[in-house]
Formats: sequence, structure tokens, C-alpha cells
Amino acid sequence: MIEYRIDWQEAAEAKAAAEEAFYHLVEEQEKGISGYYLLPERSRMIVEEVKATLLPTSTVQEADTVVVIGIGGSSLGAKAVDRILRPVTPGAKRMVFFENPDPLEVLEKIETLERERTLFCVISKSGGTIETTTLYKVLIDRLGLAPDGADRERIFVITDEGSILHRYADAHGLRSFFIPANVGGRFSVLSAVGVVPLTLAGYDVCALLKGAQKLHQDFFDRRADHILQKGAFYVRHWRERPMNVLFAYGTHLEDLTKWYVQLWGESLGKIDAQGERVGLTPLGHIGSVDQHSFLQLIMEGPRDKTVTFLKIDRFPRDITIPDLRLEHIEKNDYINGHSVGELLDAECEATWESIRKQGVPTDGIVLDGISPENIGELIFYYELLTSVAGALLDINTYDQPGVELGKQILRQKFQDKGDA
Amino acid sequence: MIEYRIDWQEAAEAKAAAEEAFYHLVEEQEKGISGYYLLPERSRMIVEEVKATLLPTSTVQEADTVVVIGIGGSSLGAKAVDRILRPVTPGAKRMVFFENPDPLEVLEKIETLERERTLFCVISKSGGTIETTTLYKVLIDRLGLAPDGADRERIFVITDEGSILHRYADAHGLRSFFIPANVGGRFSVLSAVGVVPLTLAGYDVCALLKGAQKLHQDFFDRRADHILQKGAFYVRHWRERPMNVLFAYGTHLEDLTKWYVQLWGESLGKIDAQGERVGLTPLGHIGSVDQHSFLQLIMEGPRDKTVTFLKIDRFPRDITIPDLRLEHIEKNDYINGHSVGELLDAECEATWESIRKQGVPTDGIVLDGISPENIGELIFYYELLTSVAGALLDINTYDQPGVELGKQILRQKFQDKGDA
Repeated sequence: MIEYRIDWQEAAEAKAAAEEAFYHLVEEQEKGISGYYLLPERSRMIVEEVKATLLPTSTVQEADTVVVIGIGGSSLGAKAVDRILRPVTPGAKRMVFFENPDPLEVLEKIETLERERTLFCVISKSGGTIETTTLYKVLIDRLGLAPDGADRERIFVITDEGSILHRYADAHGLRSFFIPANVGGRFSVLSAVGVVPLTLAGYDVCALLKGAQKLHQDFFDRRADHILQKGAFYVRHWRERPMNVLFAYGTHLEDLTKWYVQLWGESLGKIDAQGERVGLTPLGHIGSVDQHSFLQLIMEGPRDKTVTFLKIDRFPRDITIPDLRLEHIEKNDYINGHSVGELLDAECEATWESIRKQGVPTDGIVLDGISPENIGELIFYYELLTSVAGALLDINTYDQPGVELGKQILRQKFQDKGDA
Repeated sequence: MIEYRIDWQEAAEAKAAAEEAFYHLVEEQEKGISGYYLLPERSRMIVEEVKATLLPTSTVQEADTVVVIGIGGSSLGAKAVDRILRPVTPGAKRMVFFENPDPLEVLEKIETLERERTLFCVISKSGGTIETTTLYKVLIDRLGLAPDGADRERIFVITDEGSILHRYADAHGLRSFFIPANVGGRFSVLSAVGVVPLTLAGYDVCALLKGAQKLHQDFFDRRADHILQKGAFYVRHWRERPMNVLFAYGTHLEDLTKWYVQLWGESLGKIDAQGERVGLTPLGHIGSVDQHSFLQLIMEGPRDKTVTFLKIDRFPRDITIPDLRLEHIEKNDYINGHSVGELLDAECEATWESIRKQGVPTDGIVLDGISPENIGELIFYYELLTSVAGALLDINTYDQPGVELGKQILRQKFQDKGDA
């Protein structure tokens, strides 16, 4: 169960925008402009397939680690789910993510792996992501992986059908799973991209999809208009408030804020239909740590932000604060007998109230606990919100033309090295 | 060695501002308005003291873990240094940070501790930080710590002289180290706050201070005017470009970007001398991962950002990319025979060039390698830059009045619970 709270009152004008956005999303779904809408329903098949054909194999059963080789949309989503659901999923296999081509990090992670106890998911939508294919080569080399022979059963490829990576997989008899062509990387966590590694690791991905599917139903049945209202508000005020802070209370929510930053930033930073640069900048912060870091700026800096509070009402495990008196620090003893989780929750509520009192537009997302259903719903919530904002900004929410130039320059740099 | 590159050309007007800022900082140092300027010199005494009186004790020698209990300015700096210097400091004791009152995280971390192999640094400038005193109570309770008896030699207190935490330490005969009164939390990493735990853990803190001291000398001898130029540029353009992105290439630089976010955000988000809200918003990103996340927004979104690239020219360990041909993905084979570090570096250069071509003001900080001297210099660089920007924004860079309201509300919430 997730409760959504919006603290602001919105003008009537915004209601028209919300209506417009709703029909835009209906059309996107019907015409297949983006395929993410249908993933909560369709990806159940992939879960069933992995469960039926992979989980029973001795290779999978004997493995204690799932490696994901992928970057950006190919890793952030599964990483976020792994981080937040691990404490409520005893027995889940360890997941290790090879994303950044940072030699120190790669070496440290490789040292923790045993080839014969590890499964490898190579994930790239286009099939040709340079970081991913490079780290895959490094792993083949360092671990002595044999894609043609002994290790064929432990390597899985997730990519677009017909991509060069798919063709590579076919050439070696590796198992492939496909990402629908109309699902972009940052909207792909509920496709095979997230579903395959998370199911292999032992997460309840059916429940994750169920949570997303519930919100899908609610939204298109007009029982979740708060999403339209919030998206319309953000777009209406985007010039005064170009920054959207997600203040998440709970250290294990950190990777989820990173996933949100990608989704929001890469979708909504665009040149619009009129040729103008538009965009909303996402910021992820963790409470209560960042109350000691970023809060001052929100409170007294320019009024250029909105703030969303994300919190968990009940932690699956908690700690009672002992009834200890620290001499001379008795003023803090009011906390004794309460729990650490209560302190975190009260920090959230207190910060929320103090920011609201400053006139900053605030809203909240309150999870009743940590569960796959809640996390699935939360993921789908942010995807819908992104689509609503993109529709009202009059941009293509689903492309990323701005990242191509850097890729060309990169290739050129190595060609120049080769020529030198 | 650090090389600083600034890509923009600045107007003559900014030169006057830079001069103004310089004399402002001279005055701050001379009048002791902030004491951080003198830390690189003065904190050497603390290192010597820890080396002479603590490192030889059997308690410290037998310990393999240093716990820091602190939040915000009391932990971010040491955490950042630990993360980036660990790969070049074999034999350093493990460091574990208790910051966030998140029950899951706290329980996970406690499970990894053995009381008799651990040192504890309790750090709070005011002495009454609720998260810190609470987590200290939890550790006393869960680990059976005896501050009065067996564990007196393994608990160290770092706080303001005369604070309630200092008085607590005296009551139990615990060793205290002091933070100068005129050094705020976010400027305190080179005080006892960072120096004591990092020296206990085995880092070369003298070299860290030496790097900072070198830049101190360069700056006040006018050999580092690029800092003035950059600060003046940021302030001159802050309304059009209210966001400053630090794009750091290297996963182990992540905590350093968090330290920067606190320093910059909490110092520069203020009500200025004219009663107006001003502020620059810091964003920390990691390359190449966030090229797949945030880059699109920088490239095609509004022109509201500056971007600083932070990179490491030579990694202490690297990986040669094997000469493997992946059938059908031959287009990526241009990378074979190069190193993973080279790929990361080329990603940085390519992204930098593509952003610069968009007319975004860019600059770069290039470390020749990972060393304590370089990290000390980098820390001091950002502290000076923050002071320059604060001086030109006409604000008090060193206070944080905006965070008090939340603390009052928090206390009230628990009092209300008690009354209920």
C-alpha cells in the first residue's frame, strides 16, 4: 500500500492540462509509442519462462551470485530493486553490477567472483554499448569464461531482437531474452532487463509486476489522477522551479533515487516541438543524512525547487533505543524507548513540515512497508509521472539524441590513437 | 599534481570581483572568521599526537576496524577520503560509518563488528546531534561497550571544547579531541574530525595536510588565481546558471562528490545581506555511468548549468582489454589492447568536448594520480572556492540558520508522543 499526499492547491487551469495529458498517455499506450505501459502484464510470461526453464537447472541452483553487465538503463533499475528488496528477501543470490569502466572497481569486484558459482547477464538494448561489451571481454579473460563450452548455461543475453548482441548470442548458442523495440533503456526495468536477473536472483518479480499492474489499472481507470495533477503542476511551474528533489528516507532507497534521476533527467531534458530547450532537473537525496547537507539550501536558497518526500512507514526490522542516560547529554534522552525507525520517520515529518512552512511545494509518497508490490508500484508511478510531464512539455519523452555526439567523439579518439 | 583547466573566457569586470574576493578571504583568515584556513598547518600536531600516544597502544594495534559515529560534516569528509585513498593504502583498517538512523543499515553494519577489534570515534561539533548520540547508545547496548571500563581506550570523542559531549567524555575518562570553535562541520575534514579517525585507520594524513598546505600557500601567494576566476564567474552568472555539476570519473570519487554537495549547498544557499534568497545548487555525478543518465539533460535541456570534470590521469592499477573478437560486435574491437582506465579517460574527454561544444561553461580538475597530497589539495581547493563564491554572494558562508526549525519540530513531535 502506498499513500500519495500532495500539499499544494492547484489552479483550475491545471485541470485542463491534466486532462490533456491523460489522453496523450492513452494514445501513447494504444499506438504503442512507448511499450512500457504493457510490461507489467506482458513480462509475467518472462518470469514464468525463467522459472520453468532456468531455475531448475543445476547451473542456476548451484550459483550464489548473479552478475549484471550493463550500464545506465540496463543496470540502474535492477540495482535499485536489489538494494531495497534484499532486506526482505532472505536467500536471494548476491548481485554484482559491472557498469562503470573504472579499473579499480572492476578489479575489486572480479576478486569476489567464482566462475562456477556465478550467472552472467549481458544487457545492452542496442547490443553495442562500449562499456558493456568491454567489461564482458574483461570478464571472459579474467575468469576464463567459455561462452562456447562449459559456461554456455550460465551466460544470458538481454537485448533487442536482431541486434548485434543477439546475433553474437545465437552464434554461441547462448540464451537470449528480448527488450520490446518500443521500450527505451530507462523505461525497461520491468522488461527482461530487470525481470531476468531479478528472477534468477530469487526475487518475487511476479509481485513486483503485480504492484505495477495495479497502478496501471488505477491510472487508466482514473483512480490515480494525483499523478496527472502532480505532473501538470511541475510543468506549469517549471521555469520558476526547474529542480525536483526526491528526498528518500532510508539508505537502501539510494539506488532508487539514482534510477529516478536517470528516468527524469534523460526523458525531460529536451528540445521541444518549438525548438526550445526545456527540462526539469532531478536531484536525489537521502534523509536524514542530507538534512545535514542539502536542507539549508532548500530552506533559505532560491525558491527554485519542489520536494517530494519518500518514506517507509514500517521497517521490517527495527531497533529499540536503549534507556541509557549519557551524562551531560540528557537533553537527548527524550528518544529513549522509541525506535531508530521512529526517529527516522519523525526526522522526515519534521523536515517535511519545516520545508512546507517555507512555501516550498511538497508532496509525499508513503510506503506502508518494504514489499515487491510497493516497489513495483513506485517504479510504475515514476514512469507514468515522467510520461505526463513529457506530454505537457511537448517533447519526445522517449529518445535521447543529445548523447550521440559524445559517442562519435569517443570513437574518433581511439581511431586517432590508432593512426598515431 | 593537479592541473586546473578553465574553458571559458571571462570579462574584465569579473577581474575586479576576483580581487574583491581575494581580500575578503585574506580578512576572513586574519580575523579568524573561519578557522579552516589554518587547519593544514595546525592539524599536523594532532596527527603527531595520535601517532605518539594512540597508535602504539595494544588496543589500537589489535583493532582492524575504525567506526565513525557522526553525520553530515562529522562523517562525509573522512568517508570521502577513505573511499578514494583505500585502493592506494594497503593495510588500512576498515572504516565503518554510522550516520543515518536507518534501522536496516544500522543492523547490517553492527553484525560486521567485533567490539574487541574496533575503535570508536564519536563525532559531533555541538555535542548534541540526535542521530549521533542515539546511534552511540545503540552501539553501547548491542555491542556491550563499557565506556567506563574495559573499552575506555577504544572510544574517542571529537567535539567542541566545553560541549556536552566533551563533558560526557571527561566524566568517563575518555580521550577527547577538539574542533576549533570557528571551524564549522562542513569545513572540518582537515580538523580532528577527519584527522583522528583517518590517522587511526592508517592513512598518511600528513601527506593529505601537505597537499592542502601547498594550495594554501599558492592561493595566498597569488599563484592560484584560477580559483578566484572560477568563483567570480559562477557568482556573476548564478541567476542564469544556478546549478553546478561535478562530473567525477571514477566510482571511488562518489563520496567526494557528496562531500562537495554538502559544502557547496549548505554554505551557499542563504539569505544575503540585502535579505534576498540566493544560492547555487550542487549536483554530483559519476562518469561514465551518468553519461547514460544525466548527460542528455545537460546537452539539450535549459542552459542553466555549469559542469566541472574531475578525472584521474593514471589509475594505480589498470586492466588491459583483451584482444577478443566478439562475433557480430566487431565494431567495438577498436578498444582491444587499450586499458579500461584509458576507456574511462577517453569517455571523460569525449563528454567534456561534446558539452563544451554546446556552449556550456566547462572546466576540469585533472589529478595525475590518486595520492593523499592530491586529495588534500582537492579538498582545500573546494573549500577556497566556496569561500570565494560566498564572499561575492555577500552572505555568511559559514552558518546554517535554516536547519534549526526542523530540529525544533522534531523535538516537539517526541514531546507530543510523550504527552499522549
